[in-house]
Amino acid sequence: MSTKINPDLQKERDQCTFDVTELTNLIDGGVEKTEERKKREEMALKENIHNDDVPSVYLSHKEKYELAVKKACLLFKMIRKLQEEENAGMENYMAVLGGNLGSAILSDGCPLTLHYVMFIPTVMGQGTVEQQAYWIGRAFNLDIIGTYAQTELGHGTFIRGLETTATYDPSTKEFVLHSPTLTSYKWWPGGLAHTANYCIVMAQLYTKGKCHGIHPFIVQLRDEENHMPLPGIKVGEIGAKLGMNGTNNGFLGFDKVRIPRDYMLMKNSKVLEDGTYVNSPSSKLTYGTMMFVRVMLVNDMCNYMAKAVTIATRYSAVRRQSQPKPNEPEPQILDYVTQQHKLLIGIASVYAFRTSANWLWLMYNNVTAELEAGDMERLPELHALSCCLKAASTADAAACVERCRLACGGHGYMLSSNLPITYGLVTAACTYEGENTVMLLQTARFLVKAWQQAVSGNTLTPTVSYLGDLRNGRRSPPWDNTIEVIIAGFQRVAAGKIGQCVAQIEKRQKSGMSYEDAWNMTSVQLTSASEAHCRAILLATYFQETEQRAGGVSPALRRPLRQLVDLYVVYWALQTLGDLLRFTSISERDIEQLQNWYEDLLVQLRPNAVGLVDAFDIRDEILNSTLGAYDGRAYERLMEEAMKSPLNAEPVNKSFHSYLKPLMQGKL
Amino acid sequence: MSTKINPDLQKERDQCTFDVTELTNLIDGGVEKTEERKKREEMALKENIHNDDVPSVYLSHKEKYELAVKKACLLFKMIRKLQEEENAGMENYMAVLGGNLGSAILSDGCPLTLHYVMFIPTVMGQGTVEQQAYWIGRAFNLDIIGTYAQTELGHGTFIRGLETTATYDPSTKEFVLHSPTLTSYKWWPGGLAHTANYCIVMAQLYTKGKCHGIHPFIVQLRDEENHMPLPGIKVGEIGAKLGMNGTNNGFLGFDKVRIPRDYMLMKNSKVLEDGTYVNSPSSKLTYGTMMFVRVMLVNDMCNYMAKAVTIATRYSAVRRQSQPKPNEPEPQILDYVTQQHKLLIGIASVYAFRTSANWLWLMYNNVTAELEAGDMERLPELHALSCCLKAASTADAAACVERCRLACGGHGYMLSSNLPITYGLVTAACTYEGENTVMLLQTARFLVKAWQQAVSGNTLTPTVSYLGDLRNGRRSPPWDNTIEVIIAGFQRVAAGKIGQCVAQIEKRQKSGMSYEDAWNMTSVQLTSASEAHCRAILLATYFQETEQRAGGVSPALRRPLRQLVDLYVVYWALQTLGDLLRFTSISERDIEQLQNWYEDLLVQLRPNAVGLVDAFDIRDEILNSTLGAYDGRAYERLMEEAMKSPLNAEPVNKSFHSYLKPLMQGKL
Repeated sequence: MSTKINPDLQKERDQCTFDVTELTNLIDGGVEKTEERKKREEMALKENIHNDDVPSVYLSHKEKYELAVKKACLLFKMIRKLQEEENAGMENYMAVLGGNLGSAILSDGCPLTLHYVMFIPTVMGQGTVEQQAYWIGRAFNLDIIGTYAQTELGHGTFIRGLETTATYDPSTKEFVLHSPTLTSYKWWPGGLAHTANYCIVMAQLYTKGKCHGIHPFIVQLRDEENHMPLPGIKVGEIGAKLGMNGTNNGFLGFDKVRIPRDYMLMKNSKVLEDGTYVNSPSSKLTYGTMMFVRVMLVNDMCNYMAKAVTIATRYSAVRRQSQPKPNEPEPQILDYVTQQHKLLIGIASVYAFRTSANWLWLMYNNVTAELEAGDMERLPELHALSCCLKAASTADAAACVERCRLACGGHGYMLSSNLPITYGLVTAACTYEGENTVMLLQTARFLVKAWQQAVSGNTLTPTVSYLGDLRNGRRSPPWDNTIEVIIAGFQRVAAGKIGQCVAQIEKRQKSGMSYEDAWNMTSVQLTSASEAHCRAILLATYFQETEQRAGGVSPALRRPLRQLVDLYVVYWALQTLGDLLRFTSISERDIEQLQNWYEDLLVQLRPNAVGLVDAFDIRDEILNSTLGAYDGRAYERLMEEAMKSPLNAEPVNKSFHSYLKPLMQGKL
Repeated sequence: MSTKINPDLQKERDQCTFDVTELTNLIDGGVEKTEERKKREEMALKENIHNDDVPSVYLSHKEKYELAVKKACLLFKMIRKLQEEENAGMENYMAVLGGNLGSAILSDGCPLTLHYVMFIPTVMGQGTVEQQAYWIGRAFNLDIIGTYAQTELGHGTFIRGLETTATYDPSTKEFVLHSPTLTSYKWWPGGLAHTANYCIVMAQLYTKGKCHGIHPFIVQLRDEENHMPLPGIKVGEIGAKLGMNGTNNGFLGFDKVRIPRDYMLMKNSKVLEDGTYVNSPSSKLTYGTMMFVRVMLVNDMCNYMAKAVTIATRYSAVRRQSQPKPNEPEPQILDYVTQQHKLLIGIASVYAFRTSANWLWLMYNNVTAELEAGDMERLPELHALSCCLKAASTADAAACVERCRLACGGHGYMLSSNLPITYGLVTAACTYEGENTVMLLQTARFLVKAWQQAVSGNTLTPTVSYLGDLRNGRRSPPWDNTIEVIIAGFQRVAAGKIGQCVAQIEKRQKSGMSYEDAWNMTSVQLTSASEAHCRAILLATYFQETEQRAGGVSPALRRPLRQLVDLYVVYWALQTLGDLLRFTSISERDIEQLQNWYEDLLVQLRPNAVGLVDAFDIRDEILNSTLGAYDGRAYERLMEEAMKSPLNAEPVNKSFHSYLKPLMQGKL
């Protein structure tokens, strides 16, 4: 960190009313966790892999990939060294590859990520003990580099529709992998194009003339020595994308490629030598990985939002603009209430989603433990939660990052702000690991079932118990503008919307529609009900967890943390007034008070805005932003970064001689 | 257009209930206008300038610029030839440079645009007759290439804050241009970096020791022969951006650069030889250009939205996914009501904003004519309208394009879909030509004044007359779900919100705040009031204009057009239920009916969705999308485009030998 701090930013830090380090420790989960994180960052950054001679934004698509491979290999070499020295486990890989640290080192994405994040875990989760023994060592040692190929040109979230076939041939004891159509080509897997030499392929298993659905197969793609694609393998890259152009997303087609029988991962289902199919004990077990990734995603979204609000808040303290009062200096744009409105909800969202992510992570661990003991009761609830929180966190994060970018004015459009690149990473998550509308409808299915159980008088699982309370006539409290009542109001809204959807579907069925058509006709309302449920969960969790740990927090810190909770709840109440007016007894007077409360909260939080983002403790190398660096030298950095453009290396570009001058002289 | 059409898409076209060509002509403004447009497109595309050997998405930043200069020069050569042949005026330049055609030919932006769009018009609008005679000919002939430099590193929308100085030196009869600070460097102007050799510079005029505010000066930047920057000129490019990397946005600093006195554009204000400053007859006249650009922007936004919904709608007809009913084929995703919800509002928005853009354009011409006759009465109203419509159209267009992109699933993330690039162009418009929050607050100032006039019993200009009606106790009609009553409800909402803002500001002033502080504290509500006003205008204009021209439309076409109006109005009613519940007498029963009406409209419009976007008649070369082409061969095109990636030219990338293999062998 530079010693020379922008005076406006220094003033902000001087006026902060709480101890920033205390908050950092709280976010990390304790002083030791902060130390661990800082040590990890120090290790990951000290070899300077993140520093490019020419920023990758100036490179060609091909050069971006080549740089990404170089950096990924150096990074993995470093991690391997650390592993050997410290004998640490998978966590170090994950910690360095995921989140802000990974995207700081490999800003265009990493072509080796899926090797650790999908290839190895899938072999571990779905391979037999023998298969694990054979593959995991080679993979951990990086003797081979794998990836995971599920989505196809024609199918994404709808896995049952995948077309790639794996047909068992008992005469040779092999599977024949085949791509029967253009749309059956695998499409999107990271590292698939030119990086991986092995791949887990999800394919429709055929044996004895019968299809048994999607199963995982290990397929060698490229020669281990010369990296040439093997016969029958058509592999390449899918082309330029909105972001992550270093991830080397690929396509893959098979022309009757044969693999040994034991290359099918057979921990769950098996194909015996004679071709007999032996079913999996529980197909639900495979939900595990998907849910794990979604739970992780919520946390990633917090990291990205934290980055974006750090950049926009610090820049808003530095930037002065306009002159509302004659003869006074231009105010910091952070003093504009419209700017506070854009930024503070972003800061609050980081804390809200972080709290929910931690809570979901605990639940995930509990449910996984129960699963291993054979108890699947809470699986649907966890699945429903992970779906809607995945959708809400990615959608809110995308909106937050864009709001922050636009709040930085034109300079937010510069790649050197790091906001456009962050948006590219975040918006991708709205689609991958389950498209958001599909996710909301999955949760809606659970909610409709829960509603029907409530109607039948059954007990409901904790996160939907409010449905039963309301359904069974428990009166909601009369409205007042307290956090508890507002949250109860959100539950009332969710219950009201779910009830209306159920009624609507039943009405449509009575008029002769099939259930599926009635569901479809009601699906816009269903997504809305699902989102309302998710909002109720987010608000309640954020409020309750913050209250619970308030005792361990100093009074000076407790105040802004509680203000953030208030802001978050009141913000969402004002955003969804229509719902509250429909389903609760909120009055016009209450609304006016809420609006004023919201404006007062902005004023109260304003002096701590910079402290609240400083507490995220994102190092400049990780933030990687001209606008958001700790020292606030935004304009100097913008100019410094501009000077790195290869176009600025020459005063006159060659196109002047070849085109501009001939045009001006009428000789073109 | 290919002869082989995807059968799903063909089926859509077969079932369309109206004559697509009739609608195309209606959109263009008549059969002749359609012909003119087609001819212009044919001319602009026949020389194949738009076709790149390697798609520019694969190039480096520098190569993108060089390609953009090449294409811009070839394009201008072509236009110059056309001008000579046909003796046409400026319109041809504008038509080819602006909108979809321009962005099809120069997908990364054009480094010469500001020469025609800002340099020449500013000389024409603000230069004396002598200055016009001297500069316009040279500029039209492309002897020189100009740009327009207003924004600085430290200041954008707030023009008064610009820091560049132009100090008159009577001893030499020169102005001295100077950049006193880093933040005073010009920053952003297109073509400024390495393209233009002349520039209009907006600078604070100092003469006789006094500052007279911002005035325009022509400055030569580069030598006409060798293009080297002249002494005292520091010029270069600002670096990589989210989009438009061919526009060559530049920075510009002056170290006491001297220019002749008559390089100041003096049509309005003057500096005499002895340094005497002679004031402009009306500073309001300079609003003209800004308003013109904003009016044009609304139209541009329609073009971009039309592109995005064409792509997403056609692709949604082609793509089949999931299997809600067992034993039935996967449905077209256009059959999902959630998908219709995302796309049809986009289609309706194109028609709604196009209607408002035309209406605003007429008003602009009327007001400009009045201005020239010395009548400035309607200028504030036009200014207020252009501000809020600029904000609403750019924000809605950005949301629409992103919604369309996400509605295409993962493939929307491919640059070859053309949706990410379109988003890059659209979102930029949320910031340039007046940042959107600032724009909404400008309109709010007008609305607050109008409210106060209504309170004083004065007559109001047409677009705010509803304030007077409501303020003066005219009862709003009792609610029923008719379009007229819903629109009246939106006016009621706008009036209610403006009234609340005024009351809030007065209350805060009474509690001791200054007007400026009270305004700031209320500014979140003020932007909301401003948006509500804009929504009321949009709905009323769209409805009334569609009704008015219904007579000239065949009954078969009238029906879907009216359905789109209904959809647009009902959609926005459902989006803003909280407002309607607060300010009108809408009931829960009305809301349920509206929701069902909305769902019915989706069903009714569904069969015409493809016809409605086909009617935009965007040629494949202009649409430039793998997903949206007329023939619907989306998957084939995705694969064809992928094969153009330079990475796919070699089976093994060199990084295998330099990094991957050494890593795998433990030798890195």
